[in-house]
Amino acid sequence: MKWLSGAVLAVLMAGSVQAQTIVATGDLGLVVERASGSLLLVDQSDRSAIGRIEGLGDLSHASLVYSPDQRFAYVFGRDGGLTKVDIAEKRVAKRIVQSGNAIGGAISDDGTLVAVSNYEPGGVRIFDADTLEPVADIPTGSKTIGLVDAPGRRFVFTLWDAGETWIANLSSGAPEITKITGMGSNPYDALITGDGRLYITGLFGEDGLTALDLWDPAPAPIRVLPEYGRGQQELPVYKMPHLEGWARAGKAFVLPAVGHHQVLWIDADSLAETGRTQTHGQPVFAMSRPDGRHVWVNFAHPLNDTIQVIDTLTRKVIHEFKPGPAVLHMEFTSRGHEVWVSVRDAGKVMIYDTRTFEKRGEIEADSPSGIFFTSRAHRTGL
Amino acid sequence: MKWLSGAVLAVLMAGSVQAQTIVATGDLGLVVERASGSLLLVDQSDRSAIGRIEGLGDLSHASLVYSPDQRFAYVFGRDGGLTKVDIAEKRVAKRIVQSGNAIGGAISDDGTLVAVSNYEPGGVRIFDADTLEPVADIPTGSKTIGLVDAPGRRFVFTLWDAGETWIANLSSGAPEITKITGMGSNPYDALITGDGRLYITGLFGEDGLTALDLWDPAPAPIRVLPEYGRGQQELPVYKMPHLEGWARAGKAFVLPAVGHHQVLWIDADSLAETGRTQTHGQPVFAMSRPDGRHVWVNFAHPLNDTIQVIDTLTRKVIHEFKPGPAVLHMEFTSRGHEVWVSVRDAGKVMIYDTRTFEKRGEIEADSPSGIFFTSRAHRTGL
Repeated sequence: MKWLSGAVLAVLMAGSVQAQTIVATGDLGLVVERASGSLLLVDQSDRSAIGRIEGLGDLSHASLVYSPDQRFAYVFGRDGGLTKVDIAEKRVAKRIVQSGNAIGGAISDDGTLVAVSNYEPGGVRIFDADTLEPVADIPTGSKTIGLVDAPGRRFVFTLWDAGETWIANLSSGAPEITKITGMGSNPYDALITGDGRLYITGLFGEDGLTALDLWDPAPAPIRVLPEYGRGQQELPVYKMPHLEGWARAGKAFVLPAVGHHQVLWIDADSLAETGRTQTHGQPVFAMSRPDGRHVWVNFAHPLNDTIQVIDTLTRKVIHEFKPGPAVLHMEFTSRGHEVWVSVRDAGKVMIYDTRTFEKRGEIEADSPSGIFFTSRAHRTGL
Repeated sequence: MKWLSGAVLAVLMAGSVQAQTIVATGDLGLVVERASGSLLLVDQSDRSAIGRIEGLGDLSHASLVYSPDQRFAYVFGRDGGLTKVDIAEKRVAKRIVQSGNAIGGAISDDGTLVAVSNYEPGGVRIFDADTLEPVADIPTGSKTIGLVDAPGRRFVFTLWDAGETWIANLSSGAPEITKITGMGSNPYDALITGDGRLYITGLFGEDGLTALDLWDPAPAPIRVLPEYGRGQQELPVYKMPHLEGWARAGKAFVLPAVGHHQVLWIDADSLAETGRTQTHGQPVFAMSRPDGRHVWVNFAHPLNDTIQVIDTLTRKVIHEFKPGPAVLHMEFTSRGHEVWVSVRDAGKVMIYDTRTFEKRGEIEADSPSGIFFTSRAHRTGL
């Protein structure tokens, strides 16, 4: 009889475990805990942490992307580590070290390929998203940066040393490469617009930026803001701004100025500058609230305790506050009602209402940096 | 020993069931099966059906929205039924009949409120998304249509009889109502742009459309295309086009013309017409591929076996094909690599590659109509 109750108990217990293993991942996210090489799994709806995944290696400057079903995250570590994390089971599903020094990655629009951008050896390596088995190796002979996904099973990336952008099209198996030369001196980062049409690189070696129209069958470099950049800088550059932090707000792009206490407004069609807004410090991220009405800006050291909010109609700062020491990143909920803010030296992620600016919650985290919500799975170029 | 093996077997079986109950919902969707009052649960990645949920009542003209975690769908039936469906457990979680005759619904940007638009009694009723308990009742004394969510815990909807649009703001508890009069004669449907800024109503009782800028603190009606509409119609109108089927392609809106074999191009800033493209029949939906490069169009009876694809740069038809009898709806994967098409009288959902136009799969379905992927949870106005 004891065995029988044991059996019944096992079934009952298994039943209860089963109910708990339904994990709806649409409102989850991962926070990079750089110092400890771990990821904090968070739930937007409950404004809480629901787990921690460890053993991710060097997570300085780490980023990640999600599988289309929002069950798996692919984490790109600075040490060349590529880790597939199962957020439903809260564990590392697979981990490889694919190079000696990497900088970011992307997932193809069909969710089947994961690409990583490498400094050493320079190039891009592409892996099967399911198994992490290698699919293609594209050596470039250069540090390779600004890797993004583009529609049509393509990846776009840029060569720091050669000043070239390459488009790798994997729609029919082996990569077909299109090379665009003359992108400028030492491109250091790039972005792609949400519609996958415009690819823009920031330059370290000269002023200005360079854009490509990926709808053009033979894209040619388009010079943008030729007077913009480090050349005219009035202040030392504490941190190069993140190009992924550019915001699209209605008809304008909002761009953190390099070395200035300003954000720049650029017309999305002509790519001409249309104005500047003075800010508290050197901007690092200028992030558009999903509706495009407000832009939230954080700043480089030593002014990195502050956030300013700019109205995109008036282009004026309408709100300023100090979440705490070392505000590193901001992530909006997908429809923009709240924003999550990493405050590294407070050891917290703070959550704010984006309309009243009231604090709605906070979560303990170990030196939090990047915040990545699973809704990124459904967007191009994130 | 038999009991013991029974217990072990139970644990083993439970273990395997447990593994299967991790349901990642990011790449799932529901297909409305109108004739049988059921929903077919589909998996985009596997291009397959994975379940059927029955007992939904009258699903003619039904639509649905998703909870932020993408676990629950809220299904709005024509019979006034509001059904909360658990797609992880593949069952009806709760069902109420909230009115005698309803037409569509929406979920608030924070995911806590579900609103339904009613003909009889005319008005909007708002429910707690968790429990479906009533939260607010907003009688309008009119058939009420064009209900959408707007950022800031707002719902926007329009009165067929009175020609008014009302904005209900629930950000501080009880709804605060703003009424805009003079929207025109018999507005029959409406849309909100993806950024939540522009609300546009189609008119049945007069030519033209009416827009509202919701960023304006006191929005006033803006007349759009005053010569557009039924007044100049050359052909009988077989089916009023769906305004949710408007497409945003770069700087243009693409609009199915009423009663003409045309789609209209409208400048997104000035709202002026900038061109027309001749089409195979009277368009019902003109849906933009997520990158905005192509627009897919289906047509009213008796030409509803055909789809045309229009290039948004040249505004020319670049592809035409016949999926089968009664093409009712199209839904793109979130990053646009495939499109799913309901072919009602073939009893199938067809799946196509959006670049090669090759058929990638098909799924048996019982008189399929609307297709709704879970990625809609993360967008405004869907």
